[in-house]
Amino acid sequence: MIRFNSDYTEGAHPEILRMLEETNYQQTDGYGTDEWCEKARNLIREACECPGADVHFLVGGTQTNATVIAAVLRPYEGAISADTGHINVHETGAIEHTGHKVLALPSKDGKISADQVRDCLKEHFASPAFEHTVRPGIVYISYPTEYGTIYTRDELSSLHDVCREYGIPLFIDGARLGYGLACSECDITLPDLAKLSDIFYIGGTKVGALFGEAVVVPDPSKLPNFRYMIKQGGGLLAKGRLLGIQFTALFTDDLYMKVSRHAIAQSDRIRSALNELGFRIYIDSPTNQQFFVVRKDKFDELTKEFALDLNCFLDDEDVVARACTSWATKEENVDLFISALNKLT
Amino acid sequence: MIRFNSDYTEGAHPEILRMLEETNYQQTDGYGTDEWCEKARNLIREACECPGADVHFLVGGTQTNATVIAAVLRPYEGAISADTGHINVHETGAIEHTGHKVLALPSKDGKISADQVRDCLKEHFASPAFEHTVRPGIVYISYPTEYGTIYTRDELSSLHDVCREYGIPLFIDGARLGYGLACSECDITLPDLAKLSDIFYIGGTKVGALFGEAVVVPDPSKLPNFRYMIKQGGGLLAKGRLLGIQFTALFTDDLYMKVSRHAIAQSDRIRSALNELGFRIYIDSPTNQQFFVVRKDKFDELTKEFALDLNCFLDDEDVVARACTSWATKEENVDLFISALNKLT
Amino acid sequence: MIRFNSDYTEGAHPEILRMLEETNYQQTDGYGTDEWCEKARNLIREACECPGADVHFLVGGTQTNATVIAAVLRPYEGAISADTGHINVHETGAIEHTGHKVLALPSKDGKISADQVRDCLKEHFASPAFEHTVRPGIVYISYPTEYGTIYTRDELSSLHDVCREYGIPLFIDGARLGYGLACSECDITLPDLAKLSDIFYIGGTKVGALFGEAVVVPDPSKLPNFRYMIKQGGGLLAKGRLLGIQFTALFTDDLYMKVSRHAIAQSDRIRSALNELGFRIYIDSPTNQQFFVVRKDKFDELTKEFALDLNCFLDDEDVVARACTSWATKEENVDLFISALNKLT
Amino acid sequence: MIRFNSDYTEGAHPEILRMLEETNYQQTDGYGTDEWCEKARNLIREACECPGADVHFLVGGTQTNATVIAAVLRPYEGAISADTGHINVHETGAIEHTGHKVLALPSKDGKISADQVRDCLKEHFASPAFEHTVRPGIVYISYPTEYGTIYTRDELSSLHDVCREYGIPLFIDGARLGYGLACSECDITLPDLAKLSDIFYIGGTKVGALFGEAVVVPDPSKLPNFRYMIKQGGGLLAKGRLLGIQFTALFTDDLYMKVSRHAIAQSDRIRSALNELGFRIYIDSPTNQQFFVVRKDKFDELTKEFALDLNCFLDDEDVVARACTSWATKEENVDLFISALNKLT
Repeated sequence: MIRFNSDYTEGAHPEILRMLEETNYQQTDGYGTDEWCEKARNLIREACECPGADVHFLVGGTQTNATVIAAVLRPYEGAISADTGHINVHETGAIEHTGHKVLALPSKDGKISADQVRDCLKEHFASPAFEHTVRPGIVYISYPTEYGTIYTRDELSSLHDVCREYGIPLFIDGARLGYGLACSECDITLPDLAKLSDIFYIGGTKVGALFGEAVVVPDPSKLPNFRYMIKQGGGLLAKGRLLGIQFTALFTDDLYMKVSRHAIAQSDRIRSALNELGFRIYIDSPTNQQFFVVRKDKFDELTKEFALDLNCFLDDEDVVARACTSWATKEENVDLFISALNKLT
Repeated sequence: MIRFNSDYTEGAHPEILRMLEETNYQQTDGYGTDEWCEKARNLIREACECPGADVHFLVGGTQTNATVIAAVLRPYEGAISADTGHINVHETGAIEHTGHKVLALPSKDGKISADQVRDCLKEHFASPAFEHTVRPGIVYISYPTEYGTIYTRDELSSLHDVCREYGIPLFIDGARLGYGLACSECDITLPDLAKLSDIFYIGGTKVGALFGEAVVVPDPSKLPNFRYMIKQGGGLLAKGRLLGIQFTALFTDDLYMKVSRHAIAQSDRIRSALNELGFRIYIDSPTNQQFFVVRKDKFDELTKEFALDLNCFLDDEDVVARACTSWATKEENVDLFISALNKLT
Repeated sequence: MIRFNSDYTEGAHPEILRMLEETNYQQTDGYGTDEWCEKARNLIREACECPGADVHFLVGGTQTNATVIAAVLRPYEGAISADTGHINVHETGAIEHTGHKVLALPSKDGKISADQVRDCLKEHFASPAFEHTVRPGIVYISYPTEYGTIYTRDELSSLHDVCREYGIPLFIDGARLGYGLACSECDITLPDLAKLSDIFYIGGTKVGALFGEAVVVPDPSKLPNFRYMIKQGGGLLAKGRLLGIQFTALFTDDLYMKVSRHAIAQSDRIRSALNELGFRIYIDSPTNQQFFVVRKDKFDELTKEFALDLNCFLDDEDVVARACTSWATKEENVDLFISALNKLT
Repeated sequence: MIRFNSDYTEGAHPEILRMLEETNYQQTDGYGTDEWCEKARNLIREACECPGADVHFLVGGTQTNATVIAAVLRPYEGAISADTGHINVHETGAIEHTGHKVLALPSKDGKISADQVRDCLKEHFASPAFEHTVRPGIVYISYPTEYGTIYTRDELSSLHDVCREYGIPLFIDGARLGYGLACSECDITLPDLAKLSDIFYIGGTKVGALFGEAVVVPDPSKLPNFRYMIKQGGGLLAKGRLLGIQFTALFTDDLYMKVSRHAIAQSDRIRSALNELGFRIYIDSPTNQQFFVVRKDKFDELTKEFALDLNCFLDDEDVVARACTSWATKEENVDLFISALNKLT
């Protein structure tokens, strides 16, 4: 079985394993106060051209989303999100578990627009009974989105403008950030992201690390006392060094972008093949996830050899399949997958 | 600087790193549904002589405590704990964050007794206004405790009896379980633990692993639908295999107990030295933590070379110092520490 | 200014005030353990033909919804509701505040169907990653709905069947229950409701009382230990007698239905007038709320004399106005309102 | 049976009932936006000599405590309280339900001192691992306390100083405020209270009203957006006018203090009798609660005719009894109680 069903099917980039082994017997303090975490923080600050940023390391995405959002919101506030947003559908209500409503807006290709967000905020404050409804207190988006799409610089900029207009932060879930930054349609950089958002994170779990997400807060006053929150939320890893070492590896010699570019190159090959073979593309994605329509029986045939994600049923006959690549995807496996797609048609 | 300040100052046992490397490019499913997790579950079931047990893997102790306790309790229930219990003092209110009060009982050497628990329960139900107070819904203890002490089989058995009498579960925090089971005063085994408690966990983070705790539920009906809770609590690791691989390593060839015995041997050497040198022992611990009294200036001198935990101030002059050993403690470092203690007196 | 903007613009039915005065110096126990509460419970049990039911008194609707739903759900469960449901839009996220997601289904005239609920449940359990999503744990509907509509006996019965099929309770918000039961299209009775749902409440606040909601649990095992929840949720009124006295008054000599029928008679007069005058009816309601379309300038003219609720903007020119009647609505005020409507056209 | 077991055994002061009746058919807006609430707010602002204060009305004490504390705290913060504080023992964990730990300090006669609070705060911030523990974020005291005692002006002033030193608010639970202000030992006034605390409430439920508590926030920036919180917490009464009318009555012609003085006069008579008859006083209280020691068999005899609260068992033989007076206590009932006490000895 060759797996394209997700981007976390392997371990970690060998350089990370090498560094873990090399440093294994070093003795360090715990909970992210060690020298490796400090080194990784500095590397990330440099990469973001943000010398004053706070950088916090957490273990996984759901944990990071819930901890950041709970840290920002007052009890009566909620998080604006695309209805397809990870926090709205795939986290077993982790946001609600912290006491907050997800204010879901209809999305297009996984995205929401600045106009939608402004309307939502305007409507809230215009209501004579606004105190009877949840007050929007943060805007949550993903880059790339759940559907592999990305926001343009202009779109991000407009979203950030609305947020500043209403005094609430823009928070970007970057669980797959590298795959967004490395794709051909991307018109922003890491330093841009630090300017266009208030809080964002650099995903490690899906982009070369064993696990780990690095939360970047360009203006630290936007997320004060966050270490209390990480501890309370169960995200303060005792051996915090493991996160420091991994992000040090990823932010040395451009490794994070190198592995991301590899994934995109392989995904682009699948994208081209799907187009050439005339598959209907469900949502056109420039990043590491490809969504295409295929007859259910063909899907079943294909998935005898290749693990794919069944995203949804389109109708009685057709399903939407998702194929993911990652830092670990082997070129020869993509070859095999493309020839299987060929045979299918 | 040689560190004895905690039991998580190094990485992981080399066998674990070896297995992570060996399996690095295996493709597996995520979230604990892979074959390594299944293998580790079976090894743990065997070690506990509990073929029907549920075994769940989480990342860290605070997370495990909050997730288990929130899964068990109804909203109006609280967790009985020693006042010195980890959930009561060192988790930034993670239990309260899930909506539940910690019902702290005065402790002796980190322990609470069956009689105390029974009195607490009896008093609750005897009160005419019991609905105005938090109902005890779980009993939480640690084995070993925060002070390195352990419960005897009889004590555990009595605690379990009270719990059954009142129909609430006994939950054992085993963050340092190996160090309890491996010590000379221990009169129980892993299979005993599975009989004497309703839910317990086998700590990996402090006992040889990079991270990870294995929750064992001998009677799975005591913790139904727990995977929802793990996901909601941010503990469902995407690359769950990492936990499966680590616990497979730890439960192969008795590694978990071997590394535990090593830590105890080194801790016993420190314990003997402290006794021989006439140090006042604050709490006599048979496990991997030693608590001893030392003048503040001597403590400062000692900690120029050896990192120790300052547990508390005893009075204006004296402090309680804690020295921990672990699976990774080097014999020669203990030699150096003992001669430093010698010089101090 | 004559008010039709809501059904809580006056105090209470005079009989209630009379009884409060008459009993004012009686000394009773607190927190709902007094003889008036017991009497009211028995009257309600009789009216529901449910001698074994539990009856609990709370102060208001938002409180009752949050307390019941939090009592029923496990932390990873959510409440299925119409997207227009009170818990989804008008309670400042009170349900989320207790940790639970509202699973909003698209509604028609404020209602959801058994098929929608079944699909939602089916889809949840069919998903291979169901543990990553919120599990539906209760179905919440209102009778009448936010839009004044009511469910037929068949619709209720089908909803109840789905709930039993999946083992989750059907909970009915009856904040305006009397106005539903008293309307011409109603095909159920209070005893029917006790059979067709698992938990429901009889609204007092909007139906003749100063305040108060009576939660009825035909099978008490569906809501055990609920008094703890009421206390924790701040709903256990110290002078619980006030609730007992009010519901005793409302359930003596059929007062609850008498005042409800009065409100419906007045609402029906408005409904007829609106129809005769050719107003576009936004949602046709047989109960005490009438929703009609009117030009914004006409609305402004009308509301110089008559307070109405502006439900929403239909387009740039037209708004949806809501006119409510209640137990306290004076016939002559309805006369005046109808002639104002006449003049408007 | 004559009741002295609590201070909420009757309805309301007749003047309140009269005003409710008189205003019954007035039509008003809901949720505290009506003219009666506005009038009551102004009367309270005047009584507190605090023209800029925010005044909010809630229904009961547990609700008020939980809503205020949850509004003030960040998720990782807790509330400092006497271990005997109402929030720590008698509210079924309502504070924890909102996610916050109660940081209980040992109390003397129901009180905590400024020194204790300072030590608690100092210790928190001095700890190198402070982020692993709950951060104190508010100080909660009651005036009078659960044991009927009161803080002196100096004690309050010192508590307020510590709070300002650490930038956290001092919150005073005044469920029985009138009985404190009216007692002979009281050395403060309502305007003093507004200077010596950041948030406090004026209890109505136990002091003449049917129900209701008035939260006073001298500097409104200390409790912004509080109406969202009240709504979310289920405390925003639809017929808010009921609270406005009651507090208007209580703050017209000094009624609040008049009824309070009546209760104190009757309590003082019991206090004198207990002293004269040689009863052992458990805690000497100048307010409306008297705590005295009596043999269990005598207690049983006494409570055949007089309802008393059994506060606790002192030993195998003796119990602590509590006798409460209130605005409604009849002089002749106190006569009867005193002669029963006489007969007992």
